[in-house]
Amino acid sequence: MSFSTYGRHVTMDLREVSFDKLNDAEYLKEVLVEAATRSGATIVGESFIRFNPQGVTGVLVLSESHLSIHTYPEEGFAAIDCYTCGTTVDPEIATDYIKAELGGRIAGYRALRRGSGPIEDLHVLGLAAAN
Amino acid sequence: MSFSTYGRHVTMDLREVSFDKLNDAEYLKEVLVEAATRSGATIVGESFIRFNPQGVTGVLVLSESHLSIHTYPEEGFAAIDCYTCGTTVDPEIATDYIKAELGGRIAGYRALRRGSGPIEDLHVLGLAAAN
Repeated sequence: MSFSTYGRHVTMDLREVSFDKLNDAEYLKEVLVEAATRSGATIVGESFIRFNPQGVTGVLVLSESHLSIHTYPEEGFAAIDCYTCGTTVDPEIATDYIKAELGGRIAGYRALRRGSGPIEDLHVLGLAAAN
Repeated sequence: MSFSTYGRHVTMDLREVSFDKLNDAEYLKEVLVEAATRSGATIVGESFIRFNPQGVTGVLVLSESHLSIHTYPEEGFAAIDCYTCGTTVDPEIATDYIKAELGGRIAGYRALRRGSGPIEDLHVLGLAAAN
């Protein structure tokens, strides 16, 4: 059996998100699980870690690749990436949901096409466009 | 305590890698652990999954963010990404090591700067430049 290697990889940086949301590993896991589910992905593994003195890293392993978040609560900053192979799952549904839940503003956004020639931009938002 | 949100996120697609390497979760874990260690990263979590009929997804959670691989052995294809926050860890040491271990050719390569204004390219290799 052969599968298409086509995939989309969204990287999104958020700023001005509340400290409490970004420092709550359980809350962030709920948000990422719901985001992955809404995008149509299947969750097959997870790892969420709360750092000292603050900050969370969370990764959901998906049948279709992965969804991750890394937070700097003291900076109001979160770096999210969602990589999904194939066409049945839309990673931007996941990242849009995360943005809506966490709030803040998009400080950087790149959606890349992978597995189909060179890695190329699908969507780019800069500071001006994103706000 | 406050930390810089600056980070580098390398995405690398490999082709023409041997089926056996790409279908061996234990081997891939060894390669990623060594890659992370050489780059100076600290591993704090992991999740490696072998799919049926073939293919592996592996994620190492790092103090500095994450290192992941998703493979399509039947296509000789592997998608790697290494995201590291801060300046003490160089993600390209990790991806260079993975490329050297797995062999094959680079079909796509983008190194992005994150957490410091818009997400921007640091290095880009296309098909022509990468081979």
